[in-house]
Amino acid sequence: MIQKLIENIKMTNAPIVAGLDPMLRYIPEQIQKAAFAEYGETLEGAAEAVWQYNKKIVDAVYDLIPAVKPQIAMYEQFGLPGLAVFKKTVDYCKEKGLVVIGDVKRGDIGSTSAAYATAHLGRVQVGSQMLTPFGEDFATVNPYLGTDGIKPFLEVCREEKKGIFILVKTSNPSSGEFQDRRIAGTADSEENSLTQIAGDDRADGKPLYEIVGEKVAEWAASCMGDTYSYVGAVVGATYPEMGKVLRRVMPKSFILVPGYGAQGGKAEDLVHYFNEDGLGAIVNSSRGIIAAYKQEKYASFGAEHFAEASRAAVVDMIEDINRALEQRG
Amino acid sequence: MIQKLIENIKMTNAPIVAGLDPMLRYIPEQIQKAAFAEYGETLEGAAEAVWQYNKKIVDAVYDLIPAVKPQIAMYEQFGLPGLAVFKKTVDYCKEKGLVVIGDVKRGDIGSTSAAYATAHLGRVQVGSQMLTPFGEDFATVNPYLGTDGIKPFLEVCREEKKGIFILVKTSNPSSGEFQDRRIAGTADSEENSLTQIAGDDRADGKPLYEIVGEKVAEWAASCMGDTYSYVGAVVGATYPEMGKVLRRVMPKSFILVPGYGAQGGKAEDLVHYFNEDGLGAIVNSSRGIIAAYKQEKYASFGAEHFAEASRAAVVDMIEDINRALEQRG
Repeated sequence: MIQKLIENIKMTNAPIVAGLDPMLRYIPEQIQKAAFAEYGETLEGAAEAVWQYNKKIVDAVYDLIPAVKPQIAMYEQFGLPGLAVFKKTVDYCKEKGLVVIGDVKRGDIGSTSAAYATAHLGRVQVGSQMLTPFGEDFATVNPYLGTDGIKPFLEVCREEKKGIFILVKTSNPSSGEFQDRRIAGTADSEENSLTQIAGDDRADGKPLYEIVGEKVAEWAASCMGDTYSYVGAVVGATYPEMGKVLRRVMPKSFILVPGYGAQGGKAEDLVHYFNEDGLGAIVNSSRGIIAAYKQEKYASFGAEHFAEASRAAVVDMIEDINRALEQRG
Repeated sequence: MIQKLIENIKMTNAPIVAGLDPMLRYIPEQIQKAAFAEYGETLEGAAEAVWQYNKKIVDAVYDLIPAVKPQIAMYEQFGLPGLAVFKKTVDYCKEKGLVVIGDVKRGDIGSTSAAYATAHLGRVQVGSQMLTPFGEDFATVNPYLGTDGIKPFLEVCREEKKGIFILVKTSNPSSGEFQDRRIAGTADSEENSLTQIAGDDRADGKPLYEIVGEKVAEWAASCMGDTYSYVGAVVGATYPEMGKVLRRVMPKSFILVPGYGAQGGKAEDLVHYFNEDGLGAIVNSSRGIIAAYKQEKYASFGAEHFAEASRAAVVDMIEDINRALEQRG
């Protein structure tokens, strides 16, 4: 599936992913009203509104982008009907030729981790049948539990040619609380100065995110596609200096980059997340695309033409990132 | 809900929780056959088998225990029908007066974390209605993303009087890979020698799990019930020395303890997870209870009487833990 991601990126010339993270307050009133009229003010009604909204956005942008990233929490909050629409969205996007990254951030151990890997990337045996529960192409995974949590995902990735993105450095303001803690006894030797950050005193040891990054590189090496690994990483756009370091620590991993746009990450900062081959990163925008019509810049589309506003935002985002990539030294 | 947990523990005199983590291979053939006969070898069929199995176990043990902990991954692996049975299990256990701990290990940031909190502990607004998506009493949460990931859960906990257990030190063999890393610049001063572990050189700094534990104590203080906080922690039974330290670091938090029995944790090791008041910990057993009939000790019950085997295992577990608690110095 990493091959398909790369092919899709080359075909669209767009190293971006649209985050399908619908909130009811993003969804134009006319869609909500129609859904509530049919299903009432129920979880089913909310889920139907989400589905109609998603479908129109996907129809408007699918030819421009390689991949989508539905955030399962936004569906889970509408209970079972919400998760049914998550599944419907995954299936619809796959039909449209898009790579689907399930942003599920699951993480557990042993047989539990295997169950999550099965749920999102694999197939489950029921009697003599092998059945597909949710069937995303990639899933995001939390590393806090260590190798025991990752290994079952690697096994499913190898078997099904699917992939994962492991959280390394997240885009949020408090991500440093634990992720940036310096680990005693890991200070760089001179030979191993790969990870020197300008103006940063590393004598105390490497930060945790880098230790996690090194593990990701190990896991990635054990699970290679042709040029890139099935094992990628999540590194927030909001920490470009760390992104530069992590790019080198994990040379064979695709980096999924949240935090562009609404969260403050700029295209110029993102060029260091890419390798020399112009690949190796895929930049996510959620609100910035799906709720584009709410921004001043695209307000003229109006709520009625929200999907066209999303298309315009995608075109602008691709241009912004490609321009920055062309200008990099 | 922490009050209800405490009341239930006092009423049953059983600081334990039954992990409802059904795997198809645990489920007696007669149940699987009946479910497949009705629904075919489908996700629905598998989910129906899980439901029949869960229901019989809950009916057999609910009067002995304060709480259950369904592991959502085991349901998620059967897709939407699996999650429908997760919800059905949550509802059924609540009807039976049990406290339900959703073992979901969710963790994200901002509005996404809020969506998870809503999904599992809160209510979601749809038009003029406030609706309950899954409605567990507690949820387990992953701390890797820092305060941004925890805060939305705290808000829902305060509003709904629900609770969370934050992963601090997990029970698996590789949990130390990141959780045990020593953090530079956090070496204990003499005054602050609370966390001294015998024979352990702390000059390098505190391990990450302790830093996380300190944060849990902070979050817990901001979210208190009468005597204990709505914010608890997960600390594996397999690391009793660390459990002893973490008990003192987080005095107001209930500790949810996985790893007893099948994973190797012994009752004698667990007494240090409790406070002097005899409260403060709740010990989980999953396989050891729900698949008891597969153990030599309970084999005489046979697959047909699996639920009675589960009841016998619960009785033995309560006795084992209470005996150890009585004997502690």
